Amino acid sequence: MSAQKAVLVVGAGDATGGAIARRFAREGYVACVARRTAARLEPLVAQIEADGGQARAFGCDAREEDQVVAMVETIEAEVGPLEVAVFNIGGNVYFGITETTARVYRKVWEMSAFAGFLTGREAARVMRPRQHGTMIFTGATASIRGGAGFSAFSGAKFALRSLAQSMARELGPEGIHVAHTIIDGAIDTDFIRDNFPDRYALKDKAGILDPDHIADAYWQLHCQPRDTWTHELDLRPWMENF
Amino acid sequence: MSAQKAVLVVGAGDATGGAIARRFAREGYVACVARRTAARLEPLVAQIEADGGQARAFGCDAREEDQVVAMVETIEAEVGPLEVAVFNIGGNVYFGITETTARVYRKVWEMSAFAGFLTGREAARVMRPRQHGTMIFTGATASIRGGAGFSAFSGAKFALRSLAQSMARELGPEGIHVAHTIIDGAIDTDFIRDNFPDRYALKDKAGILDPDHIADAYWQLHCQPRDTWTHELDLRPWMENF
Amino acid sequence: MSAQKAVLVVGAGDATGGAIARRFAREGYVACVARRTAARLEPLVAQIEADGGQARAFGCDAREEDQVVAMVETIEAEVGPLEVAVFNIGGNVYFGITETTARVYRKVWEMSAFAGFLTGREAARVMRPRQHGTMIFTGATASIRGGAGFSAFSGAKFALRSLAQSMARELGPEGIHVAHTIIDGAIDTDFIRDNFPDRYALKDKAGILDPDHIADAYWQLHCQPRDTWTHELDLRPWMENF
Amino acid sequence: MSAQKAVLVVGAGDATGGAIARRFAREGYVACVARRTAARLEPLVAQIEADGGQARAFGCDAREEDQVVAMVETIEAEVGPLEVAVFNIGGNVYFGITETTARVYRKVWEMSAFAGFLTGREAARVMRPRQHGTMIFTGATASIRGGAGFSAFSGAKFALRSLAQSMARELGPEGIHVAHTIIDGAIDTDFIRDNFPDRYALKDKAGILDPDHIADAYWQLHCQPRDTWTHELDLRPWMENF
Repeated sequence: MSAQKAVLVVGAGDATGGAIARRFAREGYVACVARRTAARLEPLVAQIEADGGQARAFGCDAREEDQVVAMVETIEAEVGPLEVAVFNIGGNVYFGITETTARVYRKVWEMSAFAGFLTGREAARVMRPRQHGTMIFTGATASIRGGAGFSAFSGAKFALRSLAQSMARELGPEGIHVAHTIIDGAIDTDFIRDNFPDRYALKDKAGILDPDHIADAYWQLHCQPRDTWTHELDLRPWMENF
Repeated sequence: MSAQKAVLVVGAGDATGGAIARRFAREGYVACVARRTAARLEPLVAQIEADGGQARAFGCDAREEDQVVAMVETIEAEVGPLEVAVFNIGGNVYFGITETTARVYRKVWEMSAFAGFLTGREAARVMRPRQHGTMIFTGATASIRGGAGFSAFSGAKFALRSLAQSMARELGPEGIHVAHTIIDGAIDTDFIRDNFPDRYALKDKAGILDPDHIADAYWQLHCQPRDTWTHELDLRPWMENF
Repeated sequence: MSAQKAVLVVGAGDATGGAIARRFAREGYVACVARRTAARLEPLVAQIEADGGQARAFGCDAREEDQVVAMVETIEAEVGPLEVAVFNIGGNVYFGITETTARVYRKVWEMSAFAGFLTGREAARVMRPRQHGTMIFTGATASIRGGAGFSAFSGAKFALRSLAQSMARELGPEGIHVAHTIIDGAIDTDFIRDNFPDRYALKDKAGILDPDHIADAYWQLHCQPRDTWTHELDLRPWMENF
Repeated sequence: MSAQKAVLVVGAGDATGGAIARRFAREGYVACVARRTAARLEPLVAQIEADGGQARAFGCDAREEDQVVAMVETIEAEVGPLEVAVFNIGGNVYFGITETTARVYRKVWEMSAFAGFLTGREAARVMRPRQHGTMIFTGATASIRGGAGFSAFSGAKFALRSLAQSMARELGPEGIHVAHTIIDGAIDTDFIRDNFPDRYALKDKAGILDPDHIADAYWQLHCQPRDTWTHELDLRPWMENF
């Protein structure tokens, strides 16, 4: 397998991460999919393989430096050069400021920002000598706007956006494409179906984002020639207020 | 020809506008290309036809309401439904504030903003009943940042960006996709070659934007499914400072 | 009168412009107040004089280059050095895109942006040799956000903001302080009282902006020492959504 | 002392924090100044007292929840109602992405963002029942722009800005004024004097920010009537590029 290119999707447990992994696998990349519990990635890996692709599951707590370092080393040693790294961990919580515990504030940051830093830094380490590669960080409306009840989530998402900007400005001139996306709307996931049925009902009108379409946009970002790179991409349904 | 879909490119006189017209023509659209002097569009029309596409040249001063209204009416009557409208007129000038004449300030706005308003409004008029269509407005770094010497150009580009935002928010929920691009870098044009040779020399390193790649990005914007629309797209070379 | 410093308020016809003029007059500046019809400025001039200040009314259509040039020349010749120029013309209109006539779109831009350019440029001309002076441009929410129905107004306000940015970057290093404000909320004016009574009822709770408080903020901007300048100031009531 | 109003300055160890404390003490507030080592606050306390004001030093590691909780409780119990909370901890570091250790990335966030969250939340807890109070968070250029070498610092500053926005939107309608500042330029401190002598030499031309002027701006923010609040204030020297 060692001659093949790898895509790493950190946060492959949700519909978006899964769709991204499948999309790149369809193009011949080995989809290295990561979430805390590797066993729970089995259906995704099976699906990719059933579609004729290749995948490998990594049980990795992306907030743990050792684990991220080891995962990227393993990919480079056993799978192939890491061409694309996608950081897709969410961490949306909603608490008023005085109800936000220090534990929640820290945890959301660790999941959504610190883990993104570790992923991006380790990807940079292996991409840099090759002067080549793509990193995509998944953002949200909260990445550009704080709101009542969003101090923890928005704080982490702002930090992740800053990371993408800082890395884009440092690594772009070294040939590495770093992009940030702003997903502004509900995504077609079990979570939305179960918790926001009214929102989910908009699916028939294309009022919520299809993960496969998000994945297409990520694939297009990766394919951009280096004279025409996008650094921030907003994606939202046609009927979304913004 | 009347069953065919039309794309209108206002400001088809430069390399970018030409590339966009060719790109959409390649996909089967009739490229309706507009600039002040129709005769100067002959080489572009000839090229599109030589490539097997269809094109029609419009001599149109896009600052003149009557001319824009008539052009869109003609397209709808003689070519086919206007599916895509691209507004691509530039108007970059550089003058210190006290050297900026009222004539220049007004003219740059008329070219870069007022003409965009007329184009967008007339496109909205015919797209609205069909609840369908795409509009793309070409922006620049000056669209999001004023600068010394840029009061005229930046003022017009800010206004055009505001137009795209306002129309996106009004027309999106009616099914019309309105997008704004931020081209941040030099484009591979005769103008850059002749006036900024040092900059142009970066072409070998992909340090300036290839008009065909910009055109690809515009085509991708148009193809986005309506649950996953982008409203602002930045495009810049990998080595560009930003 | 010739040894005294002058403040020019273009758009002195509304409550905000009047309050600003009174505020600076209270500090010893000769308030040069301008609107299209000089006669309608009489109550304001009388009020300033009754308060012990000095004022002078200018009938000036600020969209007309000649008139703005002449007004600034007259101030310099007959009143004193122009220390502060405030551009405060509004021009808020609300029309859907296909209901926005070319005439309206152009007129709103002429009032809110082009007149601002003329005012700023002529102020720059006389302040530049003195390496000293303050300019303040009044903006609104529409200065930073386009919206359905706001293509004309927002387009003009974006352009004005770009002007302030461009002039700040050019003239700051020459010692001239250029600031832009974002008034985000309803102001205590006859217009709001008569047309938005529900909104006006918030006055008792300080839910709408008091023109005198806006004027205080403008005075503070002018007083900032040059090592600590603000270039964009948002002002909104405590209960305003933003 | 219990009838008096208190201002808390977290991060009172630098010139800016000290100036803010002195400014509010001059207005009759008891300056509660905090940094990790209380002993090092003695000169500041002595200076405030010599000027006729009142001050109280708190040794507090603002990254420790217990310590922040206890400090605010002590102020309320022993000093008086907390009217104003200023969060002023810096944490500027500069490292390329692959040289940024996990320890540095986390530490900078803990100092500049997490400690701000703890401070803001505890201030909110005591201000909320009174429906009254002011909080000011000190930001920097890195609060709105990521840059090569700034992933850690900018990440923390983005997060702090998001916190201020989220709290402003939640607490504003409850009568609490939350503002964020963007200090864009070098400040007149020992650090700049010792490390950036060229920059420091601009002091003679007012090319670096005077901490007393920053303090004046903070005082003005606090004094704004509640119909005219500013939520983000940029402060920079006249000759600064931006």
